[in-house]
Amino acid sequence: MSHNSFGHLFRITTWGESHGPAIGCVVDGCPPGIPLTEADIQGYLDKRKPGQSKYTTQRKEPDTVEILSGVFESEGGEQVTTGTPIALEIKNQDARSKDYGDIKDKFRPGHADYTYFLKYGLRDWRGSGRASARETAARVAGGAVARKVVPGLRVRGALVQVGPYEIDRGNWDWDEIDNNPFFCPDAKAARVWADFLDEVRKKGSSTGAVIEVVADGVPAGLGAPVYGKLDQDICSGLMSINAAKGVEIGAGFASAALSGEENADEMRMHPNGTPEFLSNNAGGILGGISTGQPVVARFAVKPTSSILTARRTIDTAGGDTEVSTKGRHDPCVGIRAVPIGEAMVAIVLADHYLRHRGQTGQD
Amino acid sequence: MSHNSFGHLFRITTWGESHGPAIGCVVDGCPPGIPLTEADIQGYLDKRKPGQSKYTTQRKEPDTVEILSGVFESEGGEQVTTGTPIALEIKNQDARSKDYGDIKDKFRPGHADYTYFLKYGLRDWRGSGRASARETAARVAGGAVARKVVPGLRVRGALVQVGPYEIDRGNWDWDEIDNNPFFCPDAKAARVWADFLDEVRKKGSSTGAVIEVVADGVPAGLGAPVYGKLDQDICSGLMSINAAKGVEIGAGFASAALSGEENADEMRMHPNGTPEFLSNNAGGILGGISTGQPVVARFAVKPTSSILTARRTIDTAGGDTEVSTKGRHDPCVGIRAVPIGEAMVAIVLADHYLRHRGQTGQD
Amino acid sequence: MSHNSFGHLFRITTWGESHGPAIGCVVDGCPPGIPLTEADIQGYLDKRKPGQSKYTTQRKEPDTVEILSGVFESEGGEQVTTGTPIALEIKNQDARSKDYGDIKDKFRPGHADYTYFLKYGLRDWRGSGRASARETAARVAGGAVARKVVPGLRVRGALVQVGPYEIDRGNWDWDEIDNNPFFCPDAKAARVWADFLDEVRKKGSSTGAVIEVVADGVPAGLGAPVYGKLDQDICSGLMSINAAKGVEIGAGFASAALSGEENADEMRMHPNGTPEFLSNNAGGILGGISTGQPVVARFAVKPTSSILTARRTIDTAGGDTEVSTKGRHDPCVGIRAVPIGEAMVAIVLADHYLRHRGQTGQD
Amino acid sequence: MSHNSFGHLFRITTWGESHGPAIGCVVDGCPPGIPLTEADIQGYLDKRKPGQSKYTTQRKEPDTVEILSGVFESEGGEQVTTGTPIALEIKNQDARSKDYGDIKDKFRPGHADYTYFLKYGLRDWRGSGRASARETAARVAGGAVARKVVPGLRVRGALVQVGPYEIDRGNWDWDEIDNNPFFCPDAKAARVWADFLDEVRKKGSSTGAVIEVVADGVPAGLGAPVYGKLDQDICSGLMSINAAKGVEIGAGFASAALSGEENADEMRMHPNGTPEFLSNNAGGILGGISTGQPVVARFAVKPTSSILTARRTIDTAGGDTEVSTKGRHDPCVGIRAVPIGEAMVAIVLADHYLRHRGQTGQD
Repeated sequence: MSHNSFGHLFRITTWGESHGPAIGCVVDGCPPGIPLTEADIQGYLDKRKPGQSKYTTQRKEPDTVEILSGVFESEGGEQVTTGTPIALEIKNQDARSKDYGDIKDKFRPGHADYTYFLKYGLRDWRGSGRASARETAARVAGGAVARKVVPGLRVRGALVQVGPYEIDRGNWDWDEIDNNPFFCPDAKAARVWADFLDEVRKKGSSTGAVIEVVADGVPAGLGAPVYGKLDQDICSGLMSINAAKGVEIGAGFASAALSGEENADEMRMHPNGTPEFLSNNAGGILGGISTGQPVVARFAVKPTSSILTARRTIDTAGGDTEVSTKGRHDPCVGIRAVPIGEAMVAIVLADHYLRHRGQTGQD
Repeated sequence: MSHNSFGHLFRITTWGESHGPAIGCVVDGCPPGIPLTEADIQGYLDKRKPGQSKYTTQRKEPDTVEILSGVFESEGGEQVTTGTPIALEIKNQDARSKDYGDIKDKFRPGHADYTYFLKYGLRDWRGSGRASARETAARVAGGAVARKVVPGLRVRGALVQVGPYEIDRGNWDWDEIDNNPFFCPDAKAARVWADFLDEVRKKGSSTGAVIEVVADGVPAGLGAPVYGKLDQDICSGLMSINAAKGVEIGAGFASAALSGEENADEMRMHPNGTPEFLSNNAGGILGGISTGQPVVARFAVKPTSSILTARRTIDTAGGDTEVSTKGRHDPCVGIRAVPIGEAMVAIVLADHYLRHRGQTGQD
Repeated sequence: MSHNSFGHLFRITTWGESHGPAIGCVVDGCPPGIPLTEADIQGYLDKRKPGQSKYTTQRKEPDTVEILSGVFESEGGEQVTTGTPIALEIKNQDARSKDYGDIKDKFRPGHADYTYFLKYGLRDWRGSGRASARETAARVAGGAVARKVVPGLRVRGALVQVGPYEIDRGNWDWDEIDNNPFFCPDAKAARVWADFLDEVRKKGSSTGAVIEVVADGVPAGLGAPVYGKLDQDICSGLMSINAAKGVEIGAGFASAALSGEENADEMRMHPNGTPEFLSNNAGGILGGISTGQPVVARFAVKPTSSILTARRTIDTAGGDTEVSTKGRHDPCVGIRAVPIGEAMVAIVLADHYLRHRGQTGQD
Repeated sequence: MSHNSFGHLFRITTWGESHGPAIGCVVDGCPPGIPLTEADIQGYLDKRKPGQSKYTTQRKEPDTVEILSGVFESEGGEQVTTGTPIALEIKNQDARSKDYGDIKDKFRPGHADYTYFLKYGLRDWRGSGRASARETAARVAGGAVARKVVPGLRVRGALVQVGPYEIDRGNWDWDEIDNNPFFCPDAKAARVWADFLDEVRKKGSSTGAVIEVVADGVPAGLGAPVYGKLDQDICSGLMSINAAKGVEIGAGFASAALSGEENADEMRMHPNGTPEFLSNNAGGILGGISTGQPVVARFAVKPTSSILTARRTIDTAGGDTEVSTKGRHDPCVGIRAVPIGEAMVAIVLADHYLRHRGQTGQD
């Protein structure tokens, strides 16, 4: 079962609502002896946290993580994991419930609060309760632990499309990521997005986006041929992110238009004796199992439903009405989805790394 | 863990290789008292089975299913499920292992046999062993049981793109599905595809495709807000299908380019007193929970790597070589993926229906 | 996987060490709309908490529980569950790590710290870390939620043997449970135990015990015939309690000596039209499924290995040595195991109740 | 979820009824490259199969196993596992449904058919359907695979009590096991049991028994401190066996009467540099983790409810009646439970071996 847990041998369980006292993540199955301090986690939380530019929600949260269990001082005086569950907790601080008073009885079109109400017969209308993107801070914390599980793993994400504007892949420069508030690897696209998002923000509107996550250093052999597929679990992880509406691996949807000749990633032996692929349409995964190439995944997020323009909707009493969202507002939730996507990919890779080691004895 | 099982309260476990004596599916968790005979399953297997037109592999398999457990004659003389595991078995008949002799020691570029070998240190090179699409017959059998679990559920699929050719959605007619060998809902597109696939087949090439699955009669409330999301599990199910490289729900990747105003599915109360959505960009799922609208999912499959044109590759001894595939050949695996996609969506819905009923007591 | 989680549709995940800042329990899958406050949980924690009599460890812990998520004020103003994960947290207060300094490098014979060290290559020697009975407070908190899930359920426990002294079942009086510090239903046995445990305590020794848990109001039909057996999961839950070495259901080990005639629980229709059993050797479970009779389970706990008398052992450097435990000390861990056993039985019943409702639609 | 599956990284899923065409077991997660033929499995099935002496049911089943998937001829020509699911199937042959006609509408007191009917609303009354001990042949087949997963593992079982007659542990001789029809390690006890069981059989009565399973060669470190306890999973596995009513590890229930001094297994360094325990009250498991000593588990089975003497019961129409069982009859189901208990212990150890290797990287 997986209501609020994700993963098997390496598993996260998250809890907490947008406007409760805290949110948290329990990381289970982490191998022992891995150096881990709050500082290892905080950097990733800082990337995700709101209010860092005018393009994301103005909620102010320090998002300070505490490790409440699962680490101990090793012989050498370093704090390391013990193999037991690592409880991570983040206090909520800037929860303004009053902002939500006017949507207490109305369903925002395109928002989870309608289905939530249908399922549970009640809902925590303050900032969407459990359906809030606030939960994703807990994943990012868990993902920071996951990154340390697979030796040599590096997981990086980038925003590659905002509204109708895609990056030019010829301009891709990972170093640009930190030079703009969008995690954009193309400096030119970042400038276009800045203008576009200014306009979106001023209108109180919102826009969708596409995020790409690339993992280097993934050992070959992770995954399984049928329902334990690595790409299946990556897609599951990315689709579990708020607002995600599509996921793809490698060439993805574009592969539908390719011929077998074009799509096949040919191989040659490198002079150093290791097999080499001449392309990566596969996105690093064939038959559900990693090839050793970089794993490449993308996911699309829809525009947030919290917008200033009034939309037709119904209320909890079953009457027609209109709703617009006045509180704090995220013109493009895709920006903050970048570190979240990285976290989910890292968690899946950590889980499959341990599963693979378990079943085959390979490191 | 999920190497070869899928689902939780309703769960399938499949087994079998392309060239072994049989394949099978164990369906666990099916509610008791549901009428079930082999005939209920056979129709779906017949839709998927190979050799039905010149556009799919010429392997001839009757794909006759046997129910080996889990049913019993009820008081009324009808055969019904008993609540215990339903074992479904399909004998393999047309397995020509010799066809594969020449690729025994070479890895097809873009094919699972390379990663399979890396992971397990050996591989069943006869027809790809476990990585063969043959496994999907077992899912289709399991999916036929799943369809009977949710009262009023109808799950239908269609091919909506073959190579570069998409259907015209204005021409969509479900009745056309059975009038062409492609499960194509657009009669005009079907003619274009026929010509295109003739050409592909003659060249010994292959092409990708996009499949759409639509489920009507899905009760509202299935799913959960975080890792038990209905869309997450549908994507996981569809990505577990051989050759799948991307999945999307509702507006999917297109939602990245939409504004919040465009994307929001507005609502009105129907005169009959039920809430009504004015559009379905959500694909029937908001915040991971079903809305009661039709659930709409699409997935892209890549072209098969088994093509006549020689491609550069390496062999199991670590030398450079070339490979082309001579045996039977599937110019567009996307065609047969239609009933497979339907099966996976049905399985996810059955599982979530039972989980929802368990947690909330709602039917 | 179940390193630190227990249950399926209703699932607890616990975290925390004896000497860390806190311990906690995440309850996942709880149905929505159930009234729940801290007070509902605190009473059970108070029964378990240490330092309540001279017969249990003198560690002083208020064991105050906080609910950090998963509840919300309902329309009527009452705090109810929302269907999302309920995070329960208990701060550690009286952790005297210095007490353990002298056993930092020695393994107590019969204690988890040896195997813990072998498995993880390190250990949190302060109060046994994760292997401490402190973790059981988190279960008791989770169990308090579980008790509210099955309508009409009552789960009660009693100590029925301390060292060699069993109760006289003819004297069983549930009202006696609260009249002595042992949860003993037999006033006479309680007096014998008091003398015996005084002696054990003065010697710095320890003793084993047997606990019985009885659940009334269990609906018929919970469980499954093979690996989803209700008794199997109860035994799994009880064996997961620290120091447990044996579990039994109904007549248990005594049934080995019975004849089929003696063991069979005969049935008659009650004048009110309901079936009635004339005995309960089955302990309320036949073929893995509840009968509707009270569910009766027992488990044995060994004496704690923390004793004053020196025992031969080895140290972490691989040398022979001796060890005795000086810190705070629990002469009979079986006493506090009573509310813990109740909690585990309640958790299993809640899980199976939801699973049964999911699969069969029965309430 | 675990209705019909058992285990995590190494998992069995069984299916089949007593009177259906076949029963089977799907083994998932078995490491690749392990030599495996039908002969490796058949020997264990032969030990369990009915009709081997006058002391077990006279049903005649050859219990011939077929491997339908998951193995392949390796380079060296040997048949080995491939890492994919191993489907094992056993045809039913001697199913005399007519024997059961007279109990079609009556519930045998102490038998699963009452609860089965309550849960599912119907039942396969022919030989108890899914609740039949016939299912255990599937486990024994799966257990034969499990035995090959842990290098150096040996799992042996013995009957240690029949009715009121226990063995004398001083007479224990593993070589005696094959010299009598009871898997009895004490030649003298075997003679007592023969007389006792002759009497039981002639009266058409039945008796309970206790089985002990001992596993040598268990690596230290398997298990986890809380809900992934090795002993917890062994107890779960043994309690899942038909008629089991109690389980214990090491000193088990007897440890309740021990003092801490008696119970502690003291340690010394062996001259060869390895730690040595001076006793094994722990049964090879401390704090849920294996110590490296032999793992010792026992379980009690109740007498079968199928007896010749009429017992009071009710019928499906809700009337009072009496029932006696005339068909084939098993005076002591404990005898055949010996290889079944071995199988379950082997399966748990295989699962934990792979889990431990996964989490810690230790072999």
